[in-house]
Amino acid sequence: MAKKEKQDVSLAVVRRLPRYYRFLVNLRNNGIQRISSLEIARQMGLTASQIRQDLNCFGGFGQQGYGYNVEQLEGEIENILFLHDSIPAILIGVGNLGRALMGYLSNEAQGVSLIGLFDQNPRGIAEINPYIEVLNVSELEGFCKRARPKLAILCIPENNAQAIAERLAGYGVTGFWNFSHIDLRLDESVIVENVHLGDSLMTLGFLIHTSFMSAQ
Amino acid sequence: MAKKEKQDVSLAVVRRLPRYYRFLVNLRNNGIQRISSLEIARQMGLTASQIRQDLNCFGGFGQQGYGYNVEQLEGEIENILFLHDSIPAILIGVGNLGRALMGYLSNEAQGVSLIGLFDQNPRGIAEINPYIEVLNVSELEGFCKRARPKLAILCIPENNAQAIAERLAGYGVTGFWNFSHIDLRLDESVIVENVHLGDSLMTLGFLIHTSFMSAQ
Repeated sequence: MAKKEKQDVSLAVVRRLPRYYRFLVNLRNNGIQRISSLEIARQMGLTASQIRQDLNCFGGFGQQGYGYNVEQLEGEIENILFLHDSIPAILIGVGNLGRALMGYLSNEAQGVSLIGLFDQNPRGIAEINPYIEVLNVSELEGFCKRARPKLAILCIPENNAQAIAERLAGYGVTGFWNFSHIDLRLDESVIVENVHLGDSLMTLGFLIHTSFMSAQ
Repeated sequence: MAKKEKQDVSLAVVRRLPRYYRFLVNLRNNGIQRISSLEIARQMGLTASQIRQDLNCFGGFGQQGYGYNVEQLEGEIENILFLHDSIPAILIGVGNLGRALMGYLSNEAQGVSLIGLFDQNPRGIAEINPYIEVLNVSELEGFCKRARPKLAILCIPENNAQAIAERLAGYGVTGFWNFSHIDLRLDESVIVENVHLGDSLMTLGFLIHTSFMSAQ
């Protein structure tokens, strides 16, 4: 599929693709080979027409009267999400959260390949990954010029995050997975995906206190 | 403010409150005492009318021609989010992610008080918190009856998460912060806030590959 077509797809559709993917992997692990859009809808809490619409954005893979072949649709979504085409990534800030994400990236995540680890104080860090040495953040420039990472995972305090992100964008990093507690301000061509754990927890706390029904 | 009023507020507004809060804390840390809705809008990338509308949902704290008093507005949002009224919480699954979240909850998070840690195999875990012993998940029922946690943080593999969440809901837990890679299916009165790191990363990967502009 051409890149141009994909840009017409809304971000909301893009954000649902990983959910479909997780759902299909789970079906396949449970030995289910085909499924109707109605049944996907029921199990995922969406409408069947939304599912057909979403998948039609990328070509539409169902057959009238048959539904979807689980393995085939899983493979299609894998392709759409470029999961076989790993993005070289670096992680900055090897504290508890950084370690947790490193474990996740090494063992579970698809589509990303961790090629560098950085910290303000790498000497204080016991060896955590036998294949990747933890470097000092002062070595970022040289490393980025050599290894050309495209994605940076920021697990650093908010007072450093903006400055380091700006440096990295200057070294050719085009996407950030940001766990710092600030909203980064970068050039519009740079893609930032924020995971604001604090915001999530405060929202949850509010909903528990008020017994507000979550619509999500 | 009465509980009833808050239920009229949309989830989208609720989700913006922590962002306003973070923004205001940051302003105060930088010595800024007052700010107009126009300036909040500019810095946060929202519109001034949206900000006024959002804050008016809870009473409206600005003054025509003056703007907002930063410290006062921060305090109001703190109250709205119940940050002084800690929710007793337990964390289940003391792996890397569990430890990272424990550190966050102990040192930074407001509004939540961690009272219990659980794991399938607590003997294998070195002491990580001098104040809270890691218990076996088999002790959940007795603990919940005694200590009445309201919130459970799930850092456990997907094959266990649904069963443990159902048990906890039966023991009176009303909210879940879910880091497992499944969408929990629980009674509608239970509040679930999912943090699907994999979904977030797959979305980011797609956007990097397609250079799609994130609207967020």
